[in-house]
Amino acid sequence: MKTLKDKIVQEGKVLSDIVLKVDSFLNHQIDPQLMKEIGEEFAARFKNAGITKILTIESSGIAPAVMTGLILDVPVVFARKRKSVTLSDDLYTASVYSYTKKETNDIAVSIDYIDSDDTVLIIDDFLANGQALLGLLNIVKQAGASTAGAGIVIEKGFQPGGDLIRENGTRVESLAIVSSLKHGKVDFLEEAVER
Amino acid sequence: MKTLKDKIVQEGKVLSDIVLKVDSFLNHQIDPQLMKEIGEEFAARFKNAGITKILTIESSGIAPAVMTGLILDVPVVFARKRKSVTLSDDLYTASVYSYTKKETNDIAVSIDYIDSDDTVLIIDDFLANGQALLGLLNIVKQAGASTAGAGIVIEKGFQPGGDLIRENGTRVESLAIVSSLKHGKVDFLEEAVER
Repeated sequence: MKTLKDKIVQEGKVLSDIVLKVDSFLNHQIDPQLMKEIGEEFAARFKNAGITKILTIESSGIAPAVMTGLILDVPVVFARKRKSVTLSDDLYTASVYSYTKKETNDIAVSIDYIDSDDTVLIIDDFLANGQALLGLLNIVKQAGASTAGAGIVIEKGFQPGGDLIRENGTRVESLAIVSSLKHGKVDFLEEAVER
Repeated sequence: MKTLKDKIVQEGKVLSDIVLKVDSFLNHQIDPQLMKEIGEEFAARFKNAGITKILTIESSGIAPAVMTGLILDVPVVFARKRKSVTLSDDLYTASVYSYTKKETNDIAVSIDYIDSDDTVLIIDDFLANGQALLGLLNIVKQAGASTAGAGIVIEKGFQPGGDLIRENGTRVESLAIVSSLKHGKVDFLEEAVER
């Protein structure tokens, strides 16, 4: 998605060979117009997938997820992160290790908001090691629902999450795949069709 | 705002005389179409206020804030909540006591995203005791920016936050003001003009 890649090049801060900070439009300040375009793009890519629900994770997933939900006209559920969640019959939970923060958080979704007949589109801001996405996939599975795939705003293609999850058979659509952050420069994986 | 009040009556769960749970469309599952209507309403109420930035707080403020930002065509910044924030020259911080959770969290906003020439609209999901809103107002003040007012989705009118903040001279626009949750029933404060 060209608008997004341009924005990453213009405003992203490369803090190391593996850390890209996009606080100016996605992770702290949010560009609502860009979020709308991202929502339109996810909606276009998954329009024939029979999506009935969008699942994301607080906080940075919420803006792109809600814009996608608006266009697909389906509800959005955001998983909550907690240091630890008391097991409960009312919640689906999963543990998610963050390589960035070097800590494990539990994520939780109320059983009221994913049904076994849902077809779920997972939306998240970043895909790196894939731990958050695996946790969300686990929750969809616990609900007995099916996953249409995952829509990712920025995938770090040089980290293993994307390959891991595609190899498991899940469709992953990333709007920008960063192939390298070396020498302070953002390189993208070329796509067959640039959108 | 009639659509919102109808939704609260239909789906809100009154858990006690002071607790209203709206997890099905605002705080856990999100209704994107309703968020869009809420954004339109806030934008209409503040359209002549010269807003240059929207400030909210993770996580439930993000969806209504981003929809408002889309219509007013301004960026949205969400304050992050932390157990404690290390003081830093890069951050505006404030302490926020939660009566619900009986704990104090720090909230933080990067100095990069609010300027002294900004006119800020604060958006939040709930207004009860007003502690979160006071924290956000404090951050706007630290930035030397001005506050156009606060747009609140649901105000609990029987708790002191709304009066407290209006008496301080801040314009507060609440789309639904709950006057009572007694006997398991949601009553609203009547407005002069129902929208």
